Amino acid sequence: MDRHLVISSDCHAGLQPERYRDYLDPKHRDAFDAALPIQIAMIEEAEKKFLVKDINEQWREGHDQALSGAWDHDARVRVLDADGVAGEIIFPDGITEKNTPPFGAGLGLPTEGVDAELQWAGARAHNRWLAELCEMAPERRVGVAVVPALWDVEAAADYVRELRKTDFRAILIPTIWGSFDPYHHPRYEPLWSVCEELEVVIHFHSGATPRRDHFGTWPAEGSEMLQGALGVYLTEVCWFVARPLTYLVWGGVFERHPRLKVAITEGTCSWAPELLKLMDLRYDHGMEDQKLGNYRDHLSLKPSEYFRRNVALGASCVRRSEVERRHEIGIDTIMWGTDFPHPEGSWPHTREEMREVFTGLPDDEVAAMLGGNAARFYSFDTEKLAALVARIGPEKQEFRGAPPELVGTRAY
Amino acid sequence: MDRHLVISSDCHAGLQPERYRDYLDPKHRDAFDAALPIQIAMIEEAEKKFLVKDINEQWREGHDQALSGAWDHDARVRVLDADGVAGEIIFPDGITEKNTPPFGAGLGLPTEGVDAELQWAGARAHNRWLAELCEMAPERRVGVAVVPALWDVEAAADYVRELRKTDFRAILIPTIWGSFDPYHHPRYEPLWSVCEELEVVIHFHSGATPRRDHFGTWPAEGSEMLQGALGVYLTEVCWFVARPLTYLVWGGVFERHPRLKVAITEGTCSWAPELLKLMDLRYDHGMEDQKLGNYRDHLSLKPSEYFRRNVALGASCVRRSEVERRHEIGIDTIMWGTDFPHPEGSWPHTREEMREVFTGLPDDEVAAMLGGNAARFYSFDTEKLAALVARIGPEKQEFRGAPPELVGTRAY
Repeated sequence: MDRHLVISSDCHAGLQPERYRDYLDPKHRDAFDAALPIQIAMIEEAEKKFLVKDINEQWREGHDQALSGAWDHDARVRVLDADGVAGEIIFPDGITEKNTPPFGAGLGLPTEGVDAELQWAGARAHNRWLAELCEMAPERRVGVAVVPALWDVEAAADYVRELRKTDFRAILIPTIWGSFDPYHHPRYEPLWSVCEELEVVIHFHSGATPRRDHFGTWPAEGSEMLQGALGVYLTEVCWFVARPLTYLVWGGVFERHPRLKVAITEGTCSWAPELLKLMDLRYDHGMEDQKLGNYRDHLSLKPSEYFRRNVALGASCVRRSEVERRHEIGIDTIMWGTDFPHPEGSWPHTREEMREVFTGLPDDEVAAMLGGNAARFYSFDTEKLAALVARIGPEKQEFRGAPPELVGTRAY
Repeated sequence: MDRHLVISSDCHAGLQPERYRDYLDPKHRDAFDAALPIQIAMIEEAEKKFLVKDINEQWREGHDQALSGAWDHDARVRVLDADGVAGEIIFPDGITEKNTPPFGAGLGLPTEGVDAELQWAGARAHNRWLAELCEMAPERRVGVAVVPALWDVEAAADYVRELRKTDFRAILIPTIWGSFDPYHHPRYEPLWSVCEELEVVIHFHSGATPRRDHFGTWPAEGSEMLQGALGVYLTEVCWFVARPLTYLVWGGVFERHPRLKVAITEGTCSWAPELLKLMDLRYDHGMEDQKLGNYRDHLSLKPSEYFRRNVALGASCVRRSEVERRHEIGIDTIMWGTDFPHPEGSWPHTREEMREVFTGLPDDEVAAMLGGNAARFYSFDTEKLAALVARIGPEKQEFRGAPPELVGTRAY
């Protein structure tokens, strides 16, 4: 094979807000009709103040057809084929935040200002539609079902069992637990158990942070966004998506569930070497931690060993500087992605960005990060993808030779 | 001078709990009498379950005389002289947590489960006593006054003005803001202003973390500590002490207050290179952050430039691995410390640890980290310390030659 199998570990899909109605349980449609104009107004308001409207519109201009790939099968196939992407992991929230499921059932999965029953209803609606989208190209698409797991863990575990009867093998759970128990609490045990048993990959995807810490009371009526809020958000957002890892490791979740798989997506991978070193150091504790007594006898492995065994990074649009640290991070751990159709992603410059980031590295390492790691982690049937890869995959030759001058957006 | 000026950027002092009574405003003494047995019981309970009693007792054995340096001038002088430490920055909480000020006015400065008026009273009591301790050796001691700044920022600013009429030139404020506004909020402006104007160094000291995230409802009646809680705590505690830096930088606090000084103490310095790189990268934002619009025009410097200008790290018992990254962290930024009289500190092996960490580095760099940086940052009068240094300071010769084999507790 002279072409690379490419799998995007981070893509998004979502319906236009009004179209979720048909996928909702009928009893929630009145609530949906009441909530829809508010949701649309909030998206517009956010784009005006938080996401900058003119930048987004400029980015979208002339791309209507391609961006309809957020929900349209044919358009999506055209975009991914042109990008050379054979397989993908699909999270909610399509074009920026315009295509988010109703009732707060999108990426952020907040627990404040939402109703548990409705959030569940929104999640089920999205998952039903996502199942249809994935069925149109099952060998290419792994849909990540939205599971608002904090409210009722038993119900979440039962739902995972129900999802597994269809093609779903991946779920998204909240990154931020708010006033709920953190993830080393034993109440989450049924969820870890069912995901291990049924080989369902658990995902944390970046986006949510403790809102009030960053934005204060904004966007409540009459309040202004705090100066610096966005800088704080951008500094901390990747810490918060990686945070559950610390809780799962020390809580013994990977000790009790050696086959459990967890992916941390669009959170960069630059935090990994320091965090793993720190946790291992705490594990091999010296004098300064002894006053806290023994806090590690329940763990038979070092934190970094659980990481290597149980975790993969949906590293999305990795930077050259991250790829240069690939051996520290774990060459089997990094899974590249496009983040299509988000404007911070690589599309519509995917091929150039890929080359900029990976050229000059050994073929097998490029292959692992571009697709091999994801193929293994998500159990893609690579046989079924072979003909597609032979047609659309980027040629291995493209990544050979001297690294290009680093000038683009992933160069730093 | 053939000896090093050594300043410990991280020391602790505190009275035995019952002795704080005399330093309290009389109107709070009834509350004190009621609270004292509860406080003592809590310390004992914590030592039994959280801090391990037998390890602490073993560490303390035979050291009663030296450990009374937590409150006793003469004993403290003997310990510091023997350690070769000429100057020190003094935080609350003496021997482990046994000598913490009353009413929650110790290092952690919690805002939950405490009474604002009483916490203030406890802080004032501690500061009165600390002033006396410092006056006994003013050229050697910088006391860090406890200021529970979250409740009422104007009151806190007024109190700093009052403190400055005495010898105080350093304050401790809470690291964790709980349900209060985070530090990029404009309500803290009066505090930043007065500290800049009066050249008072603001301190964040490690210890506090969001309790519930780590420990759940423990130690409430009938609840157990969550398995893994201590591992999570040890992994996150240094992140939380550095966290306010992110808020001060993006909030423009250092932009508006170019002479403000902030120290981050006992939080290691291994997090600094990644955090500074990340903030600078966000500042030099590429395509992926553009959708968030312009969030940096209020900052004329890069985040790392504010850090170099306004911040120092009370790096306490630095490890060899941190010292090896001194140029990434900032050679002018790292301030060594002993953490006396805490068991995780270097005492009673200070001289050996010092040699293990610093031997083989250039004289001037050792000098900067052991004392020069702190002397400048805290405006010590080094002339007044010269005779003392000539008598007790470690010889520069001790740190020359090949680095020792790394075997001790700071070697990793």
